[in-house]
Amino acid sequence: MTRLVMKFGGTSVADMERIARVARLVAAEKAAGHEVAVVVSAMAGRTNELVAWTDAAGRAAPGLEPSDDEYDLVVASGEQVTAGLLAMTLRHMGHRARSWLGWQIPILTDDAHGRARIDDIPAEALGAAVDGGEIAVIAGFQGVTHGGRITTLGRGGSDTSAVAIAAALQAIRCDIYTDVDGVYTTDPRIEQRARRLARISYEEMLEMASLGAKVLQTRSVELAMAKGVAVRVLSSFTEPGEAGSDTGTIVCDEEEIVEKRIVSGVTYSRDEAKITVLGLPDRPGVSSKLFSSLADANVNVDMIVQSRARTSDTANMTFTVGKRDAVRAMELIRAIQADVGFEDAQVDEDVAKVSVIGVGMRSHTGVAKTMFGALADRGVNIQVISTSEIKISVLIESAYTELAVRALHAAYGLDQVG
Amino acid sequence: MTRLVMKFGGTSVADMERIARVARLVAAEKAAGHEVAVVVSAMAGRTNELVAWTDAAGRAAPGLEPSDDEYDLVVASGEQVTAGLLAMTLRHMGHRARSWLGWQIPILTDDAHGRARIDDIPAEALGAAVDGGEIAVIAGFQGVTHGGRITTLGRGGSDTSAVAIAAALQAIRCDIYTDVDGVYTTDPRIEQRARRLARISYEEMLEMASLGAKVLQTRSVELAMAKGVAVRVLSSFTEPGEAGSDTGTIVCDEEEIVEKRIVSGVTYSRDEAKITVLGLPDRPGVSSKLFSSLADANVNVDMIVQSRARTSDTANMTFTVGKRDAVRAMELIRAIQADVGFEDAQVDEDVAKVSVIGVGMRSHTGVAKTMFGALADRGVNIQVISTSEIKISVLIESAYTELAVRALHAAYGLDQVG
Repeated sequence: MTRLVMKFGGTSVADMERIARVARLVAAEKAAGHEVAVVVSAMAGRTNELVAWTDAAGRAAPGLEPSDDEYDLVVASGEQVTAGLLAMTLRHMGHRARSWLGWQIPILTDDAHGRARIDDIPAEALGAAVDGGEIAVIAGFQGVTHGGRITTLGRGGSDTSAVAIAAALQAIRCDIYTDVDGVYTTDPRIEQRARRLARISYEEMLEMASLGAKVLQTRSVELAMAKGVAVRVLSSFTEPGEAGSDTGTIVCDEEEIVEKRIVSGVTYSRDEAKITVLGLPDRPGVSSKLFSSLADANVNVDMIVQSRARTSDTANMTFTVGKRDAVRAMELIRAIQADVGFEDAQVDEDVAKVSVIGVGMRSHTGVAKTMFGALADRGVNIQVISTSEIKISVLIESAYTELAVRALHAAYGLDQVG
Repeated sequence: MTRLVMKFGGTSVADMERIARVARLVAAEKAAGHEVAVVVSAMAGRTNELVAWTDAAGRAAPGLEPSDDEYDLVVASGEQVTAGLLAMTLRHMGHRARSWLGWQIPILTDDAHGRARIDDIPAEALGAAVDGGEIAVIAGFQGVTHGGRITTLGRGGSDTSAVAIAAALQAIRCDIYTDVDGVYTTDPRIEQRARRLARISYEEMLEMASLGAKVLQTRSVELAMAKGVAVRVLSSFTEPGEAGSDTGTIVCDEEEIVEKRIVSGVTYSRDEAKITVLGLPDRPGVSSKLFSSLADANVNVDMIVQSRARTSDTANMTFTVGKRDAVRAMELIRAIQADVGFEDAQVDEDVAKVSVIGVGMRSHTGVAKTMFGALADRGVNIQVISTSEIKISVLIESAYTELAVRALHAAYGLDQVG
């Protein structure tokens, strides 16, 4: 017998009808011979309702003792409800099942309420229960401190719960059921010829997640990579039997992927804004001052490029920040204008970041050349470039997003990926 | 410093505005020099919503493993949410506060899910927290088994939580805030001259609770009596300052009530149905067969009277059952008609039970005489009578209920009670 972890998100358990469908999917895996642990999110909309109440209760009021611990207690109740309802539904279908809350397993975390990290999962009792044939229904998103207070793992934390449980149970795989049936070479809403990938490496998945493909939470992929947990992404909107072992996308070690590709996917994001600081004096410490002021205010800076200005003794600095941070970033920059002595600062929110990702870039040359050539052929102007070992990102005018995505998808032959 | 327990029901915490008012009432007691522990129910309507989901999940499906443990897990989430929100609100007002769930204190119970009984409350940590000046906000209605599973104490169980916490903390008093401002000599909607009682004994309160005055849950009064916890019933719909120590009704030992009354209150209930079995053979074992069949089906029988029938060798038996059990009771009785050999059975739902209650009956005679006289004067016909040491109940035609209540209220001089 092998242990399997299945995870269902909020839309998959949004009402009793969908919970019943989830129960059928779980029962099918049990019937197929697995020992099953299921991780569930709160019913869709529930968490937002609970968060709204905590806002009304003054959770985020300035100058007062923060209530992140009480926030966690309140919002964790959402997953608690789903876990109980799914366990009941499974029993109603004649199966043995029981719910497990974070503190009951326990899923031990640090004290960072609202964004806690899992320290340890002593899974003896849980493991014994599933080995005894009982389906374990686990409330996702939540843990407990060593001092016995409820914590939550941050938005999307149920993915992380599922991977951590899979690691603790030494499960053969962690199946993440969601509203898409796998990871695609690009967004099928933009490129109809986008193809589902049978397998993708952890590294590629991490880049995809951080670059805008909202399939898996980044931390859950990091954890899966660190613990060597094979993750499968697949749709919960299928009936049992339709979800054979060949469906979905397996996220795994690069070595386990037989068919080698240079580029695995094209992603895009419109969540960034471009800031340009003009006429920066060309002396040491200027860049440091600029980026320190942003870092101190927790504003994340992504792409950065520095260029010489028309006058010989100054430089221009262009970089991107999250769109929601753009206004604050501009305020911070203007606050140090007199001190730093630059000429002007401008913000442009009309930009998009398009990226190509692939572990094959490590061993293959010419990837950048293909990218820039394909974009130039279509008349797409590149404003900023950034790269990592396995991805190249370009910032372009937002209106060209779809055109650029389609051009790159074709340029790397992704239409033919199996 | 003295410890005080305050309890607020579902209507008192129905929305964020009311939770803020509760926080002000709590803060006022803290400012008055008490160490405060607060017990809260789920927001009004919340428990019903959760229960409806568990019904849809097949909780009560016949022939399957019961899911009472999962039911408890789901419904206990309601109190969890309120506790977190109230703790946050108190912090927002500048107080030190934290929530405590049943398993965190812990409130240890037996395994009787859905109607668990409290075994023990090791209150060292809780006591230390309130002694340190922190307001403890406790989720009512819930406990935890010795094996670490969540339990609930049954409907109205938050009253029991509050009294048990007060006993464990050796609090000077347990204040139960509700939507009425105390215990009245009778229902003020029927008799405008009904007066709030400053004090009432545990025994009288128990009779009142079981006879239809829905102020306190019966079990909480039993527990208060057993543990010697002084309970005060008062309204949460007042602002701090209005609720002085002279408001509400104190439920306490008979010895602590200076002013002695013979009768403390008049109650009524329309929740019963009268069943009459005619022409029962006059031989041993017949009554036993009749009432055994009802008891085996968990039908509670209340008042019973047997009378000789017109024919010399048979008897008639009249008794009352809860109105919701009336149909089933009649089915059970008809099922044994051939075996027992009675002539006919009739049900009458058009009845009411009116009762007078007072510990003074123990030492004073003539209470029954006054009751029957007052009813006779008004032309109210008594169908069945039952008595205990401190109460007399009569079953009458439902249409006479208000008339009878007013007549008895006047007959015992309750209009003059201070």
